[in-house]
Amino acid sequence: MIAPSILSADFSRLGDEIRGVADAGAEVIHVDVMDGHFVPNITIGPLVVKAVRAVTDLPVDVHLMISDPDRYLKEFADAGADWITVHVEACTHLHRTLRCIRDLGKKAGAVLNPATSLSTLDYVLEEVDLVMLMSVNPGFGGQSFIESSLEKTRELRRRLDAVNPEAGIEIDGGVSPQTIGRIAEAGANIFVAGSAIYGHSDYRAVIARLKELAGF
Amino acid sequence: MIAPSILSADFSRLGDEIRGVADAGAEVIHVDVMDGHFVPNITIGPLVVKAVRAVTDLPVDVHLMISDPDRYLKEFADAGADWITVHVEACTHLHRTLRCIRDLGKKAGAVLNPATSLSTLDYVLEEVDLVMLMSVNPGFGGQSFIESSLEKTRELRRRLDAVNPEAGIEIDGGVSPQTIGRIAEAGANIFVAGSAIYGHSDYRAVIARLKELAGF
Amino acid sequence: MIAPSILSADFSRLGDEIRGVADAGAEVIHVDVMDGHFVPNITIGPLVVKAVRAVTDLPVDVHLMISDPDRYLKEFADAGADWITVHVEACTHLHRTLRCIRDLGKKAGAVLNPATSLSTLDYVLEEVDLVMLMSVNPGFGGQSFIESSLEKTRELRRRLDAVNPEAGIEIDGGVSPQTIGRIAEAGANIFVAGSAIYGHSDYRAVIARLKELAGF
Amino acid sequence: MIAPSILSADFSRLGDEIRGVADAGAEVIHVDVMDGHFVPNITIGPLVVKAVRAVTDLPVDVHLMISDPDRYLKEFADAGADWITVHVEACTHLHRTLRCIRDLGKKAGAVLNPATSLSTLDYVLEEVDLVMLMSVNPGFGGQSFIESSLEKTRELRRRLDAVNPEAGIEIDGGVSPQTIGRIAEAGANIFVAGSAIYGHSDYRAVIARLKELAGF
Amino acid sequence: MIAPSILSADFSRLGDEIRGVADAGAEVIHVDVMDGHFVPNITIGPLVVKAVRAVTDLPVDVHLMISDPDRYLKEFADAGADWITVHVEACTHLHRTLRCIRDLGKKAGAVLNPATSLSTLDYVLEEVDLVMLMSVNPGFGGQSFIESSLEKTRELRRRLDAVNPEAGIEIDGGVSPQTIGRIAEAGANIFVAGSAIYGHSDYRAVIARLKELAGF
Amino acid sequence: MIAPSILSADFSRLGDEIRGVADAGAEVIHVDVMDGHFVPNITIGPLVVKAVRAVTDLPVDVHLMISDPDRYLKEFADAGADWITVHVEACTHLHRTLRCIRDLGKKAGAVLNPATSLSTLDYVLEEVDLVMLMSVNPGFGGQSFIESSLEKTRELRRRLDAVNPEAGIEIDGGVSPQTIGRIAEAGANIFVAGSAIYGHSDYRAVIARLKELAGF
Repeated sequence: MIAPSILSADFSRLGDEIRGVADAGAEVIHVDVMDGHFVPNITIGPLVVKAVRAVTDLPVDVHLMISDPDRYLKEFADAGADWITVHVEACTHLHRTLRCIRDLGKKAGAVLNPATSLSTLDYVLEEVDLVMLMSVNPGFGGQSFIESSLEKTRELRRRLDAVNPEAGIEIDGGVSPQTIGRIAEAGANIFVAGSAIYGHSDYRAVIARLKELAGF
Repeated sequence: MIAPSILSADFSRLGDEIRGVADAGAEVIHVDVMDGHFVPNITIGPLVVKAVRAVTDLPVDVHLMISDPDRYLKEFADAGADWITVHVEACTHLHRTLRCIRDLGKKAGAVLNPATSLSTLDYVLEEVDLVMLMSVNPGFGGQSFIESSLEKTRELRRRLDAVNPEAGIEIDGGVSPQTIGRIAEAGANIFVAGSAIYGHSDYRAVIARLKELAGF
Repeated sequence: MIAPSILSADFSRLGDEIRGVADAGAEVIHVDVMDGHFVPNITIGPLVVKAVRAVTDLPVDVHLMISDPDRYLKEFADAGADWITVHVEACTHLHRTLRCIRDLGKKAGAVLNPATSLSTLDYVLEEVDLVMLMSVNPGFGGQSFIESSLEKTRELRRRLDAVNPEAGIEIDGGVSPQTIGRIAEAGANIFVAGSAIYGHSDYRAVIARLKELAGF
Repeated sequence: MIAPSILSADFSRLGDEIRGVADAGAEVIHVDVMDGHFVPNITIGPLVVKAVRAVTDLPVDVHLMISDPDRYLKEFADAGADWITVHVEACTHLHRTLRCIRDLGKKAGAVLNPATSLSTLDYVLEEVDLVMLMSVNPGFGGQSFIESSLEKTRELRRRLDAVNPEAGIEIDGGVSPQTIGRIAEAGANIFVAGSAIYGHSDYRAVIARLKELAGF
Repeated sequence: MIAPSILSADFSRLGDEIRGVADAGAEVIHVDVMDGHFVPNITIGPLVVKAVRAVTDLPVDVHLMISDPDRYLKEFADAGADWITVHVEACTHLHRTLRCIRDLGKKAGAVLNPATSLSTLDYVLEEVDLVMLMSVNPGFGGQSFIESSLEKTRELRRRLDAVNPEAGIEIDGGVSPQTIGRIAEAGANIFVAGSAIYGHSDYRAVIARLKELAGF
Repeated sequence: MIAPSILSADFSRLGDEIRGVADAGAEVIHVDVMDGHFVPNITIGPLVVKAVRAVTDLPVDVHLMISDPDRYLKEFADAGADWITVHVEACTHLHRTLRCIRDLGKKAGAVLNPATSLSTLDYVLEEVDLVMLMSVNPGFGGQSFIESSLEKTRELRRRLDAVNPEAGIEIDGGVSPQTIGRIAEAGANIFVAGSAIYGHSDYRAVIARLKELAGF
């Protein structure tokens, strides 16, 4: 699935930008929430999720780069999130947080920073609908795809296949025509793409190309 | 000056909403930044300020409801803020923070929560271009205008007139045709209005009415 | 009103201890909640409030010495608190917190540490049912009554009389037969007493004596 | 060993409740300390430990669900704790914290949340007298036994047997006649039980039943 | 009294630098402790205080620009501090902190940032041996003397004279031959000077000049 | 390489102390930065690094025992650090932090507390120039070498050899003639020594002895 990140869209006409990628074949709308504490940037919150929800029927994938996310799960669920993903580095009670998201009727995901060990997932692999691996460091600009993410994806796929084969693997960071083929091959099936899509004039062409390279 | 708060606008077509109030007579665009830590809500950050900046020539008034705002002053200045206001409750080094905003070439403002004493301004009245008084509690919905803000405004006006008569007083919270007259009379000259404007179908009419009632 | 603090009671037979002071003339049961963060001690929480509630019809006065008390107001209200008091030093949004307590149907109080200026109350004097002044530093043992609390009480009484004469003044720390007369004279009408009551073998006698000295 | 948790006891007559389970065959008294920061609940502190200590000769097992527990180790030791267990998620300097508990002359335990990897214990298996695995998420009500705790217990037993076979394994959460047999079989030997005991009218009968099912 | 700040000394030969100013007429050695949290800089701690103590008999004046200073009072006292000053912005329990310093047998001081109101001292004027007013923002370089400090000094002198005339007033920031005369006239009697002394080749000459201008 | 820690030097004549060990054969100068938050001690900051830099050409190895080290990387680099090491327990975005140090042109190191699992390094082994293992708990005095560090060193050497054989292993804590042989044998090649060197009257003799025992 191709998940355009609205952070790269033109915010002055967000409705058009979302309809644009939806019409062009996007399958998920990705929303990057940053609070300026877990990551060194502040982006958008529930209000913007609500606006996204109002203009599309695609699933809305809310990536919480915030500290202590438990405080805001309900707010994002109410705003229209379909998937809610939380960072393992931000969750002292990760098992509980994932259960909480599912109790809200949403798909639950765990996200790992580039340096974070897969051992953090040892006892929650069955509690997730998806795992997202960061292939750049969240909240900082101008980074390129971190190559070690490929081996990490392969190892994660193996671990999930053993106990929860339905769970998806989402990759966020540096996804482009240059990288998506290798990422898909490693076992990921959801691809966050920001400037690779919104920096392009023909959304349809670029999304089609990404899908083709990913082997869909 | 009438300062529509974009939090009440339709975020899917923010450009139109901002041009709409600008054409209708708004004099400042007010942007409410919340980080989910200083206040229990997350809203928008520099990226949205940049989008606002791109569609209007009006001054952009960025209200930072975030903890430790020093970390983000440059980012908001670079994004296009003209005024930057910080909460005295969030600033251990308030004098420095205000100087820093001015050193960035921006107008500096101090904001006070409804319960906060004017004594917090004792030694910075000359360091501000404006003071904003919250007449509702920031970050919470469904509140009405707090009446004690009127006397607080009068007292603040007196103190500013003694040492810094040019400094403006901005009021945020519950500004409406029902309250704006009394607020203006108390000495405020900048009025943040959210739903009072964006909840109305005819922006021009409501802004004109607000200005008239404020005695401009 | 005499408000025995259960921190000085025998916790292994709390029901008896509460019934004991209630039968002996106590008018309020005072519960000191400490979280080990706002003050350097951990005491008791909602569960104990619920146990207190179950054995007495007296008002239960819950003193929250915790940071960020907003997170726990509902929990203490549900547990059976009648009065909830919060420290001004712990509340960034004090006006909101007090309103919140009243919205829960409880009496709202603001508490000031010994060093804290009365100016912190400038804009909430009308939002409280009572103000509590600490006459020792909360969370530390072995302290004696701080004499400057008397003048602070007198000044607070004057300020409350001007705008909210019904509001009570509660004093916590070092209340004893040696001090209660002067405290009452200064304008307080609610007296927290811990060891002065529970350290005594005859609750009835000591409470009667305290009341007499307070001039009830 | 059966360790009744006093959080489920009637707090108005705690002495009776503790003597009740002690007479009925309990071997340890379990005290759950929560600070409202590490977990979203506030319970009890050193004062209550002292009251427990005064009414029983059984070991008192203090489970610290608090952030930065180093600050309070001495206070709980002085209050009469025999065992002190700390969460690995709360300890930046875990090796030091465990050494510190032993230097106070107490048994030291490490506790893991349901999601926490056993890899957090890689270099402290020899520093503990016991490890506690949470089989529900601490600080939240109404949860049932998390089944993955069984495999985690087995793996932990294997690791401890290799280097520190004397160390105990304590299980906290959802222990009941329905689960205790499987938990014991997996390798645990200390069982925290709250409502399973205190929610029952005949403590002797239920404790005997738990022991029998655990195979003691 | 002239109090050279060792932050401006040559750290590779600190002993010589301290003996140098002591021989040249300095009356106090000022040590600026910054923790990188209360202020955006990290400087020195107890170990350096101990080294200072070992080379001089002058009083050592330790200025704690750290958050939650209570944790380190004993450590600095043991290291040889004679005066310990704490920021009112960093002390939730200021009355207690000041008492604690005096209980350690040291002179206790409260420090105010440039923006901080004198109302923060309303109930501790009798608990201090000195008050320090920051005339630049602590922890930031390259600032000049803030002129409003003069009126603040005068007002503080008036308040202290009423209840605690023995208490000193120390000024930190921008003290130089250009400013010391006016500062002394406003009522200060202790002057921290960094580069004004250590940036000069002849310590004796500059200290003599400062004293003369201060009117000693 | 032998890396004397200046924390054990005589701070009143730091220049002499550093030249002393440099002349005596030390190959690196180790600087322990503690902020009183990540560890319970405050030591020294950039200013002292600058003083060290000025008196030696040896590489300066700055060990940051501070929380959120990203805020201070540039400051220490500018002050003259050659190596900067950060604690994995203090870095939410460890991959980014290490990249940042290298982007500043410095050697980047990750440090692990005694209890910390090597799994924290799973995805950054190629991002480091060195890994430091703490063989005592940082920030606390009077500890002896933790023996389990030897097996940890061996395992780390194996992992590094597989992907980054050039990376060094530095050991900090309890290094002495009694331990250095075994540590070197386990695979470490950089040895921090404090009192083992500075507590000795003949720096040259002790450094020679350490080198010999380490098998250089």
